[in-house]
Amino acid sequence: MAILKRRGGLGPTAPDQQAAGNGLLHRRALLGRGLMLAGAAGVGTGTSLSGAAAEPLEDAEWSRHQGTTVGPIGVRSKFEKDTVRVLSNPKGEPRTQHARTPHQLLSGQITPSHLHFTILHNGIPDIDPNQHKLVIHGMVKQPMVFTMDKLMRYPMVTRQTFVECGGNSAPMFSNEPVQASLQLLHGLASNSEWTGVLLSTLLDEVGVDPKAVWMLPEGADTPALTRSVPLKKAWDDAILVLYQNGERLMAEQGYPVRLLLPGWEGNMNVKYVRRIKITDQPAMTYYEARNYSPVLPDYKAYKFYFVNEVKSFITSPSFGMSLKEPGYYEISGIAYSGSGTIKRVMVSADGGNSWAEAAVQGPAQDKAFTRFHIPWRWDGSPAVLTSRAVDDGGNIQPLRADFVKVRGETLKPVTNPMGFANQHYNSLTCWGINAKGEIAHVYA
Amino acid sequence: MAILKRRGGLGPTAPDQQAAGNGLLHRRALLGRGLMLAGAAGVGTGTSLSGAAAEPLEDAEWSRHQGTTVGPIGVRSKFEKDTVRVLSNPKGEPRTQHARTPHQLLSGQITPSHLHFTILHNGIPDIDPNQHKLVIHGMVKQPMVFTMDKLMRYPMVTRQTFVECGGNSAPMFSNEPVQASLQLLHGLASNSEWTGVLLSTLLDEVGVDPKAVWMLPEGADTPALTRSVPLKKAWDDAILVLYQNGERLMAEQGYPVRLLLPGWEGNMNVKYVRRIKITDQPAMTYYEARNYSPVLPDYKAYKFYFVNEVKSFITSPSFGMSLKEPGYYEISGIAYSGSGTIKRVMVSADGGNSWAEAAVQGPAQDKAFTRFHIPWRWDGSPAVLTSRAVDDGGNIQPLRADFVKVRGETLKPVTNPMGFANQHYNSLTCWGINAKGEIAHVYA
Repeated sequence: MAILKRRGGLGPTAPDQQAAGNGLLHRRALLGRGLMLAGAAGVGTGTSLSGAAAEPLEDAEWSRHQGTTVGPIGVRSKFEKDTVRVLSNPKGEPRTQHARTPHQLLSGQITPSHLHFTILHNGIPDIDPNQHKLVIHGMVKQPMVFTMDKLMRYPMVTRQTFVECGGNSAPMFSNEPVQASLQLLHGLASNSEWTGVLLSTLLDEVGVDPKAVWMLPEGADTPALTRSVPLKKAWDDAILVLYQNGERLMAEQGYPVRLLLPGWEGNMNVKYVRRIKITDQPAMTYYEARNYSPVLPDYKAYKFYFVNEVKSFITSPSFGMSLKEPGYYEISGIAYSGSGTIKRVMVSADGGNSWAEAAVQGPAQDKAFTRFHIPWRWDGSPAVLTSRAVDDGGNIQPLRADFVKVRGETLKPVTNPMGFANQHYNSLTCWGINAKGEIAHVYA
Repeated sequence: MAILKRRGGLGPTAPDQQAAGNGLLHRRALLGRGLMLAGAAGVGTGTSLSGAAAEPLEDAEWSRHQGTTVGPIGVRSKFEKDTVRVLSNPKGEPRTQHARTPHQLLSGQITPSHLHFTILHNGIPDIDPNQHKLVIHGMVKQPMVFTMDKLMRYPMVTRQTFVECGGNSAPMFSNEPVQASLQLLHGLASNSEWTGVLLSTLLDEVGVDPKAVWMLPEGADTPALTRSVPLKKAWDDAILVLYQNGERLMAEQGYPVRLLLPGWEGNMNVKYVRRIKITDQPAMTYYEARNYSPVLPDYKAYKFYFVNEVKSFITSPSFGMSLKEPGYYEISGIAYSGSGTIKRVMVSADGGNSWAEAAVQGPAQDKAFTRFHIPWRWDGSPAVLTSRAVDDGGNIQPLRADFVKVRGETLKPVTNPMGFANQHYNSLTCWGINAKGEIAHVYA
């Protein structure tokens, strides 16, 4: 079974199901069987009917009239109109546009394609798939050109994976916690099911020179974006993606074809890919030699930083929500690692003094968002919620003090005049809850 | 690794990779390494550049101008405007509306929510989640009412599962193969990632009378649709769904909450659920006693038919496409079973005379769409493609002759004046390809 079961002897049944400080319960705590109903310890969340059963069964207005006509494309409820991406450049001025995923309003593991984050440096190109071509050339036996029609005839694979911008979570480099929603803090990471042709299949076609060790994919949008990629990644798991979450790629996601490098910095997953040059050295393009070379506190810089390291954050409760009353709540969040599969997520309700293991939603997939959950009984006093993930390679999210020691707190240009270090944050995110149930972003 | 690997000694490397008649290759055939490049045996699909490498690298029109502005909700390419659902009642006249998923244009395993099939009997209700309530009552210790706010605080689970209408594939009961697209034949089945509260969690809250064995969920739309469901399903894996593919349910999918019974007939997955009555007997409502009681050739009828049995169909190539030239193609399709996990899919290119095992995309999930693939070398002569799936319980798709023997060919009222038997078709679907590469629906 793919789902978590919470019944039938899978967890402890002792009355005390506390797993860590400040109300964290065992991840498989048995919440029912009269425990919530009786209102014991404020765990109950449903409301007893007490004879008023008829009341909510009266027909509401929408039960009395014919509804809206079904259309060729499904539409969302008007009550979900605020579930949208936040834009950095809504008028589309001639510079970079960012659209951030509203994680605080979502659940599950898939990000719907229309809410997937995107960054465009000169708007969305309107590419005709019947004219677009992909060339593979350079250190190959035979350069080849692939039309989209031809590409669609090759063997395909399907997998889930996240894509995360190297600059996601940049506000976390501030030396004071920025008071902003999850979407503004971590909205430049999303997760889809992708389907396409393994790049290795096409490399087999063109015949790669054994001396080649790099490749240079190039996009067909106006910036002609290029990034050097070690050829090993192509042999490992790179995909030329044609479908996202079941349908052809959305225009802003690289239609008609993008490169997908599971677990590697978003910018390298070149959209609208029209060319892949096979080479024996990196090209040192703008995006690898300047923009995505994080500068360290001692002014040295990383040379090539590809992997999005293990990370997690709590999506609910989170900044901007408020707890209306003490009682039972579920803590839920997302964990992921560009190095592998999420193995374990620890959660704390007391700012890291004590930790309990969350339930990790299966099947956890390699380099994909993995949802975690843990039940929590809020007693109405202040709490600090945070999460810490571990992947199957044993990589663990660093504590903030350890992270800052190496990477600095460099959001402000005054600290780092080069201002390029605010990338690849993968330390903790903490939500401070006060006695009124209000939630702030805190460092713990 | 979640993906199929096609390199590195996973398959035979012998020159003859034929796995079954009429060009079916081994599912892990090594297609590259010069085989396609050399054009040997018509396997090659890419085009050799022969010095013309510069040509496709000229900037196209879309590489020269600023693109469209990114919006709060992502949009699809205008070139995908035909990737839509087909409607049975596009004007929304006061009767049932069907919207069918275009499987022939999709790939992967997830169906995007806006292309998920839906059936509405009186349009889409516009339900305010702040007013909607769910009542659980009947044979319980304490009836309870749940607001959506309260429901959102309960432990949630996430899983993929398909939903299929009992009436999906009705045209397959015709005694002549109906010439229609995959969408019209099998478009009333779709697959999503669903997130919500296990119904068993709430049953634990209300305390179920041990004598109760049925439940009667009821929708809040105008038909107040009801179906009797064995209570065992609630304990097994029923979910009160709040999120579909990461975001809140679409209005037409039951917003703000629907019942999900993984693997069971679509109509039972009551949308807009406002009430669940716990009982000791079935209610014999319209949809279980009349509309979804398939009548057999001897005029006896099934009493309760819940499970969508093991099934598969080839999505590409399929009716409406045409093969432009002999050579290599990938055969791809969908398999699923309401009884479990897809274990194996066999594919034939000669109408069932010989079979080869397809590659099944992992991780195959319980009661969810599972994509299968197999490489095929079309020699330009007539072929009949078909697929046959087996689940982990050993259930196998019946051959058409065996299926018809039991269930009849009853599409036309003249054969069956009651006209209600055209449900739960799970036999094979065959695509006949002629020497011109045109594809027809055939019985083989």
